[in-house]
Amino acid sequence: MIARLTEEERALALADLPHWTPVDEPEGICRRFTFTDFNAAFGFMTRVAIMAEKADHHPEWFNVYNRVDITLTTHDAGGLSRRDVDLAKAIDAVAG
Amino acid sequence: MIARLTEEERALALADLPHWTPVDEPEGICRRFTFTDFNAAFGFMTRVAIMAEKADHHPEWFNVYNRVDITLTTHDAGGLSRRDVDLAKAIDAVAG
Repeated sequence: MIARLTEEERALALADLPHWTPVDEPEGICRRFTFTDFNAAFGFMTRVAIMAEKADHHPEWFNVYNRVDITLTTHDAGGLSRRDVDLAKAIDAVAG
Repeated sequence: MIARLTEEERALALADLPHWTPVDEPEGICRRFTFTDFNAAFGFMTRVAIMAEKADHHPEWFNVYNRVDITLTTHDAGGLSRRDVDLAKAIDAVAG
């Protein structure tokens, strides 16, 4: 069972993820990515999908043309967990 | 320039797409797909992405784990066009 971050852990994690915005209901973090075109956007999604599957932790995401909106939350933990933070950092690394 | 379907054309098209639901703002059609797991859901999305790119007509879509919600509309036409109908049929064929 993965644990929800405490308030202090959450504040520390968010300070380390400047491009991500906290969201409520469910508690999580979100980020919007914009690319040149659909090909680039879906290529990015494919890289993230493979990483997510490997980590067994998946994003909630929306795509329209060159835009990808990602929300990360851990349903089993009822909020933000270390898994979300790790996936967010991996996604940032892919986005460059 | 691709034309928005007339009311009559739209009714005929919808009768031919029983799994799709009309939506407003923007005028379009949507369908929810549910798969075994994320791998299957994203595999489906990848097939649709390649078809969409080839047709130069892209979906608006949301994915969480094994679920994919797709909305089709033609921004340039200000509503539902033949392109949406063709893409919906191609998506249905992929979904099986």
